[in-house]
Amino acid sequence: MSEVYAARRTRLRERCTAGGSAAALVSRPANVRYLAGAAPRGAVLLLGARDDLLLCAGPLEDRPMEGRPDEALSVRTPSGPAGDPAVAATVLAAEQGADSLAVEEHHLTVARHRALRSAAPGLRLTDLGCAVEQLRVVKDEEEISCLRIGAEIADQALGELLESILVGRTERHLALELERRLVDHGADGPAFPTSVGTGPHSGRPGHRPTDRRVEEGDFLSVCLGATYRGYRCEIGRTFVIGSSPADWQIELYDLVFAAQRAGREALAPGAGCRDVDRAARQVLDSAGYAEHLPPLTGHGVGLEIDEDPRLTPSAMGKLDACVPVTVEPGVHLPGRGGVRIDDTLVVRPEADGGPELLTITTKELLAL
Amino acid sequence: MSEVYAARRTRLRERCTAGGSAAALVSRPANVRYLAGAAPRGAVLLLGARDDLLLCAGPLEDRPMEGRPDEALSVRTPSGPAGDPAVAATVLAAEQGADSLAVEEHHLTVARHRALRSAAPGLRLTDLGCAVEQLRVVKDEEEISCLRIGAEIADQALGELLESILVGRTERHLALELERRLVDHGADGPAFPTSVGTGPHSGRPGHRPTDRRVEEGDFLSVCLGATYRGYRCEIGRTFVIGSSPADWQIELYDLVFAAQRAGREALAPGAGCRDVDRAARQVLDSAGYAEHLPPLTGHGVGLEIDEDPRLTPSAMGKLDACVPVTVEPGVHLPGRGGVRIDDTLVVRPEADGGPELLTITTKELLAL
Repeated sequence: MSEVYAARRTRLRERCTAGGSAAALVSRPANVRYLAGAAPRGAVLLLGARDDLLLCAGPLEDRPMEGRPDEALSVRTPSGPAGDPAVAATVLAAEQGADSLAVEEHHLTVARHRALRSAAPGLRLTDLGCAVEQLRVVKDEEEISCLRIGAEIADQALGELLESILVGRTERHLALELERRLVDHGADGPAFPTSVGTGPHSGRPGHRPTDRRVEEGDFLSVCLGATYRGYRCEIGRTFVIGSSPADWQIELYDLVFAAQRAGREALAPGAGCRDVDRAARQVLDSAGYAEHLPPLTGHGVGLEIDEDPRLTPSAMGKLDACVPVTVEPGVHLPGRGGVRIDDTLVVRPEADGGPELLTITTKELLAL
Repeated sequence: MSEVYAARRTRLRERCTAGGSAAALVSRPANVRYLAGAAPRGAVLLLGARDDLLLCAGPLEDRPMEGRPDEALSVRTPSGPAGDPAVAATVLAAEQGADSLAVEEHHLTVARHRALRSAAPGLRLTDLGCAVEQLRVVKDEEEISCLRIGAEIADQALGELLESILVGRTERHLALELERRLVDHGADGPAFPTSVGTGPHSGRPGHRPTDRRVEEGDFLSVCLGATYRGYRCEIGRTFVIGSSPADWQIELYDLVFAAQRAGREALAPGAGCRDVDRAARQVLDSAGYAEHLPPLTGHGVGLEIDEDPRLTPSAMGKLDACVPVTVEPGVHLPGRGGVRIDDTLVVRPEADGGPELLTITTKELLAL
């Protein structure tokens, strides 16, 4: 793995040099992990003119941490557990003779940025912007296989839940059971708080489980994901409780299913993000649900659950091969409930069989 | 409750006016919740010269949210789900004729702060600092009763775990079972990721549960907490697995117990935070464990699990009555394990019986 991290840091260093900065300070945890192999809590990565350093906020063995730091990196705990590694990194960059340091202005707070400035007044602080996030968009096969395993785990956890009795159980308990099963099957943990919505809560994006119990005739929508070696996938399904779905439930489900399929089928290298969004969205718009739609119909996944690209009406940019995204249109009717269907897929060229579906749980309307 | 939130906002407004700002923008979620009763994801609170506004990033019913917003507040969703409520709030403050706006520079990123500046160039942005965090330090009895209930829930969950078979089970599963029990007993959820450390992992602050299984003769240290109505408490205990603890285990336990008791007994209105830390720390120092000690021996709790005050050697400031804090000294011996004992208490004057212990699970060394 070590050379993978080194190659990523080299790509970033090239961008920095092109941007006129010899040194960069990476503080956003997911970015640190991407470049260093691990992100001990509070650690920052200094991409120096000469060498790269992982600066930690305390002794490594005391840091809650996923992954292991790249052995090729020298690790330092500069100023004791109390100090801010970002300040230490800035001082170090100045000592190494850098005249400017690119920092993540979208992550550093104003107060912290001021502390860096006063720690090294001679050093010009520039903006690294989202350079690392941009590097993270296209995944290598190693990253994709972590997502694939995570998706298998989520499929397993969901499949087991469907075999159990659901009526009478609360949203909270179903969510907790799903999270326990994720870990049972080898996940680091849930990729995000598991969402379980019943009846009027169904189909709500990001619904927080409540004590409402599953009832006959409910829509039940579930959204969960596994984190595997730091990589986070997502799957969402909606079911009907009881033997016979109502007509409105079947109609709404078929509609959302059609929208989600349209979105999936629009995934291709070179496709515009907004075009994928439109493909899914227009199916629901034309059925008159325009005002019931969430702002986005999908997003990238990786070390974070909500990464670039974003599939929205205003999104710029095009998809590349090897970009994993969710396609998750849904409709929520206040007071009645709704449907969400959510898959994680990897954009692949037609020649390779088109988009690779990672979350393979059936999307037929199951009556449980 | 409404008048409680209004009174809190009034106190903050007085501080702002004293600081020369007629308006304030509160963006840190726990601070928004403290002043508004709820913090819908992405919402900010504008404390205007005239009225107060909660600006949300999307329709309220679509926001994952704990608590309900104070009805006395007008709620707006300014620029659609895509917009940044902080930008909208800044524009609004300028329109209302404020010449300066105090913002939370320790929470706003550099990039976001720049967006605010360019959205209202005429408006002077000042630093609100940690004014809201300071208001939050001393709790009212309503807040303390939420912490008390949360502590009861954590005690129950821990007590039930101790009645079950532990040998052979993994740290991950014990942690998950504890979190399920917290919710069973009415918690909103865990107050922080539950830590379960066995054998060599025992006594590590913030240890992330692994797949290591409990073995005969292990130390088992557990740290968990419940969130109840947003308030987060913490309890940590260490046990021995098997009938007869080894001598070194008994000695180490007695030592940490003595340190923790010394810390608890030092809690009083007017006591210096560093003096409470020293009371606990010196017991361990004098036994030769100086280099095995964590940087802090306790911290405030409330809407966040790690609040002011901090009990460290360098801490300034004194404790007040009605300040809930943890007292959690511990010793971790790399490769061998260790002991942590952690309580949540409320500082009370001697006349009221001294510190109120919220987490009442026994601190005798239990052999399980």
